[in-house]
Amino acid sequence: MTTEPQQFASDNYAGACPEALEAMLAANAGSAVAYGDDGWTQRASDSFRTLFETDCEIFFVFNGTAANSLALASLCQSYHSVICSSAAHVETDECGAPEFFSNGSKLLLAPSADGKLTPEAIRTLAGSRSDIHFPKPRVVTITQPTETGQVYSVAEVRAISAVCRELGLKLHMDGARFAHACAALGCTPAAITWEAGVDVLCFGGTKNGLMVGEAVIFFDRALAEDFDYRCKQAGQLASKMRFLSAPWIGLIESGAWLRNAEHGNACAERLAARVADLPAVQLLFPVQANSVFLVAPDAVLDELRARGWRFYTFIGGGARFMFAWDADPARVDQLAADIRAACEVRALA
Amino acid sequence: MTTEPQQFASDNYAGACPEALEAMLAANAGSAVAYGDDGWTQRASDSFRTLFETDCEIFFVFNGTAANSLALASLCQSYHSVICSSAAHVETDECGAPEFFSNGSKLLLAPSADGKLTPEAIRTLAGSRSDIHFPKPRVVTITQPTETGQVYSVAEVRAISAVCRELGLKLHMDGARFAHACAALGCTPAAITWEAGVDVLCFGGTKNGLMVGEAVIFFDRALAEDFDYRCKQAGQLASKMRFLSAPWIGLIESGAWLRNAEHGNACAERLAARVADLPAVQLLFPVQANSVFLVAPDAVLDELRARGWRFYTFIGGGARFMFAWDADPARVDQLAADIRAACEVRALA
Amino acid sequence: MTTEPQQFASDNYAGACPEALEAMLAANAGSAVAYGDDGWTQRASDSFRTLFETDCEIFFVFNGTAANSLALASLCQSYHSVICSSAAHVETDECGAPEFFSNGSKLLLAPSADGKLTPEAIRTLAGSRSDIHFPKPRVVTITQPTETGQVYSVAEVRAISAVCRELGLKLHMDGARFAHACAALGCTPAAITWEAGVDVLCFGGTKNGLMVGEAVIFFDRALAEDFDYRCKQAGQLASKMRFLSAPWIGLIESGAWLRNAEHGNACAERLAARVADLPAVQLLFPVQANSVFLVAPDAVLDELRARGWRFYTFIGGGARFMFAWDADPARVDQLAADIRAACEVRALA
Amino acid sequence: MTTEPQQFASDNYAGACPEALEAMLAANAGSAVAYGDDGWTQRASDSFRTLFETDCEIFFVFNGTAANSLALASLCQSYHSVICSSAAHVETDECGAPEFFSNGSKLLLAPSADGKLTPEAIRTLAGSRSDIHFPKPRVVTITQPTETGQVYSVAEVRAISAVCRELGLKLHMDGARFAHACAALGCTPAAITWEAGVDVLCFGGTKNGLMVGEAVIFFDRALAEDFDYRCKQAGQLASKMRFLSAPWIGLIESGAWLRNAEHGNACAERLAARVADLPAVQLLFPVQANSVFLVAPDAVLDELRARGWRFYTFIGGGARFMFAWDADPARVDQLAADIRAACEVRALA
Repeated sequence: MTTEPQQFASDNYAGACPEALEAMLAANAGSAVAYGDDGWTQRASDSFRTLFETDCEIFFVFNGTAANSLALASLCQSYHSVICSSAAHVETDECGAPEFFSNGSKLLLAPSADGKLTPEAIRTLAGSRSDIHFPKPRVVTITQPTETGQVYSVAEVRAISAVCRELGLKLHMDGARFAHACAALGCTPAAITWEAGVDVLCFGGTKNGLMVGEAVIFFDRALAEDFDYRCKQAGQLASKMRFLSAPWIGLIESGAWLRNAEHGNACAERLAARVADLPAVQLLFPVQANSVFLVAPDAVLDELRARGWRFYTFIGGGARFMFAWDADPARVDQLAADIRAACEVRALA
Repeated sequence: MTTEPQQFASDNYAGACPEALEAMLAANAGSAVAYGDDGWTQRASDSFRTLFETDCEIFFVFNGTAANSLALASLCQSYHSVICSSAAHVETDECGAPEFFSNGSKLLLAPSADGKLTPEAIRTLAGSRSDIHFPKPRVVTITQPTETGQVYSVAEVRAISAVCRELGLKLHMDGARFAHACAALGCTPAAITWEAGVDVLCFGGTKNGLMVGEAVIFFDRALAEDFDYRCKQAGQLASKMRFLSAPWIGLIESGAWLRNAEHGNACAERLAARVADLPAVQLLFPVQANSVFLVAPDAVLDELRARGWRFYTFIGGGARFMFAWDADPARVDQLAADIRAACEVRALA
Repeated sequence: MTTEPQQFASDNYAGACPEALEAMLAANAGSAVAYGDDGWTQRASDSFRTLFETDCEIFFVFNGTAANSLALASLCQSYHSVICSSAAHVETDECGAPEFFSNGSKLLLAPSADGKLTPEAIRTLAGSRSDIHFPKPRVVTITQPTETGQVYSVAEVRAISAVCRELGLKLHMDGARFAHACAALGCTPAAITWEAGVDVLCFGGTKNGLMVGEAVIFFDRALAEDFDYRCKQAGQLASKMRFLSAPWIGLIESGAWLRNAEHGNACAERLAARVADLPAVQLLFPVQANSVFLVAPDAVLDELRARGWRFYTFIGGGARFMFAWDADPARVDQLAADIRAACEVRALA
Repeated sequence: MTTEPQQFASDNYAGACPEALEAMLAANAGSAVAYGDDGWTQRASDSFRTLFETDCEIFFVFNGTAANSLALASLCQSYHSVICSSAAHVETDECGAPEFFSNGSKLLLAPSADGKLTPEAIRTLAGSRSDIHFPKPRVVTITQPTETGQVYSVAEVRAISAVCRELGLKLHMDGARFAHACAALGCTPAAITWEAGVDVLCFGGTKNGLMVGEAVIFFDRALAEDFDYRCKQAGQLASKMRFLSAPWIGLIESGAWLRNAEHGNACAERLAARVADLPAVQLLFPVQANSVFLVAPDAVLDELRARGWRFYTFIGGGARFMFAWDADPARVDQLAADIRAACEVRALA
């Protein structure tokens, strides 16, 4: 198969990073006990405990849909509800997975321009109804960084967890790009999670450089009771578990988890900087993580497509670019140059 | 991590075979479109179509729990039932996954000594009740080979599918070790599936030499309608799909799928042959695929454990050994020798 | 137990009408076969067929939550979605029941001031996404009359069903107060349902004068396949079915179904007419069925409460009054007089 | 509608008893607050508390399918399992309802000739597996009396609850005919439930003389948390709740609940006594409650059918007769005489 030139439509377009790959190949040697009772899985779990500086409970599942849906289902009964942003991935892009895994838990949506939840929005939604004709709020989920690339500060997460505790709600963090948030904040993983009041984190591996796999991390071990049974029943227990767990060893122990994220973030900044002077192109959101949302005229976007670029568009008109661990700076520059050229072509038209 | 000596407790203890690994590494180069719209996934699907000599529909999912449960759920509503053997993996080892994915479909169990279903057993179960207080039978699922290593002949599958058609039931084949059945039968994949009346096959990749992944194959494309949505909602759509699909290319195009199975089967026969003369040890089932079920006194089993061997035991007293693509014949011989020695030790005691 | 003065907070506050009661008492004589294989249930079903002038399929269930949720679940798979108004009862007051019964079908909400769906809104929602990351639209549900008391005309329902057919969507009508819509429109039940393109109707009995019970009516009998199993599994099959079905005979054969609704509608008009000249009080919605939504200052509402009236309030400030078959016109007049007095008291304050 | 001669095929064939009917009619006067916030529901709940001599929590639902399924679902997660007899109604006659309401909890079946569970059977099933590939046992459900009419003694229930406590299992009692057990035992409702270690009881109203309705009674109030939401979401919250609750007042306060059951039990004994001397007819189970299971030759059963009798048959050949509150002793005698005559006719043949 021939390989296409690199695209930035999604950070899922990237392959696995060398550190993850090397660990996976190492794990491939010889036979290992199935279903997670192997040394690789033990070591990967310990790596997470070291990284998070706490004795957390870790489960390795296949993808983010399952990680978030199973975590939410474990915090809810079917007649409970989950408070999230109207832009949350669990609402907009999971085909009803949270409702499926929980057997009916409803998502309560806080309208949000940039995808962030606020303590006020949580309070309003949690207090809007208290009768049995409406599902009882039990969990808040925030995406860190948000689907628009916005990063919650430690103070923001702390403020949210405070209102959660006050209202008897659990706090879940969808960290599909958690490493990018850590890189952006320059803080420890502990500081932005359990130290700030997060109960459960879904740490995204795929967008961080793995081939496949996410980790569900319970900081309150009591909440993890029987979660292994939940994973098994829901088709999320890998038989050859070492292949899901070992690559995390490569990622975490080498520091690649953070380097990969820093690189993605830097490429996003690089693109943004290179098109900042173009009047026809605006940033829809500040660039804080590894994505750039550009508002641009249709003609510009058409020209970009004509030049071979792939990207997702969004309502209102614009293009999203996402940068993974493997983004080639030269190719980022080429994209910037093509955007500039597309604006000029359009100006002439 | 140091590697243990090879064990035959499960064919899930093996790593990935070279052909699968090579294809996965090849797929890792460059960027590829996510969620299956990539060339690797297209080519893997085509490989299956060639292998099965028909224009079937293929879906790649993460594991066998999901493959079987999603396939059954797609053939049923929650108030329908699934006819299976009392020894079927979906009944005994899936922690309620079929009921979870289908939201309540009941499994109707046909008692079976060797795990095989018969047309008579299907007819009896399907006809046992016809009132609305009992879930309506809609699907028959057979495991090929069975959990006890028994292989359905083409004639047997044809007889089962005939009764299914007569009774308005769909026929699903759990092929966690499907390749081993093909190797044992010496027939084409087509002959034992769609040509014999199978509607949906779950083709096991993990036990055939992959790191992770199974394929759900719909021979009647109408039954596959919206199955992609079902996979997505249930957390079984890989974002970097090429890593689930490309290894199948390696497996199928090289013929490793069959060689791997032949090797596993041969190792099972090898072990059985080498212990055939031991009076203290009996075969619980004829060796037809890659497993050997030995009935042996507890003292023999204890001695084997003392010599470092791992194995599953079963009710009635005995040990199961399973042979994967990587089984080392010398190590098989060592196991045989240790069984012989254990019998002698016991005879002396 | 002493009885309170009549309240108009809900049309669920009323008891059973004499015609329903009489039929239930008649059905109580002697023994009858259970689970619906009795003469009363047969006759009630036939009454519906006569009323709707078509050979429809009828199921009797316990309440509206179940009627609507089961009907929607029968039209969807878990990964499908249901288009409804943001004010629809299934969204706002069923505690996630549609999601529970369907095992995850998402409701897609069309913003609507008066609770009505339009062909344009349906088209927009149905066309908003077509990727597998978002549940595929399969059903449209409209409430007739809406939760705000607005009645769809025959032409409006026809326009909606036309767009449904065009887009491959089924059309469900939540008729919790279906009789009130018929009374308001002065049309036949056939004209506003199957003749206008409705596939399934939930005909509300409780608000029409029954003690308990709703009817799910399939105009396309193919859609009713195995719905009896669905009801049974979901706890909606009455063992002594005659008590759910016979009261419908009383309601339908006597014409009480329509008279009851006409009376409720007339009482709503009566109240609205008696307060029409009060400048402090406005109608939030035109009075078309048996409800009156009054926007009024808090002081007026407080005074009404002080005078012993119960009512639901809504966002923005106001009171809802609902009139059942038993509404006493003198009591309606007393309410009107108290509203008037409350306005005067307030004016003085 | 003309009424058939009384049949004893099911105790669901009976209508409502006068005490229930009278209370329902009394409750029909005037308006009452919906959804259970009414005086009738309060009083009915208090009646239960008085009857059970404890401050239990009571929920009124529509039928036994829902009562048992909701109660079990509240004690389980989807990956847990429920231990029951192979003859339990939840296994044999609920069309997968427990699996549906719980989203997949599996029933673990203890083979049982008479439908009774024993401490040994519970211990064996609970200890059979402890790996995550099999659903974790969490609840034991017993039917009192069993589907075969056998009554657990207080000592038997105490022995079962002791093993439940030891193994960390909750104990649920399916009391579809609970009153008949109390009548048979001559003990207080408290003695055979919470005093004996039962956590949750489903008290059957329909078979005890109601038109419709069952009560779910939580003796441990902590287990009842949010059960009202669960009922609502699952379509089991009656809007005009007084009609579900008030009849219980009639049943309990008048003592009819016990008299009705005593009458049914006495009629069963009456039939059994009158056919005891017939050599061709045997009792399949001792008569302890309101059912008689007769083993009889097919020719006898055919003759009974020819004489107009309806009854359920069971595997092995025989007829079940059930006696409700309204069983007419003269009609019981007529049945006995017809059985005698049928035996004679057969002897002649």
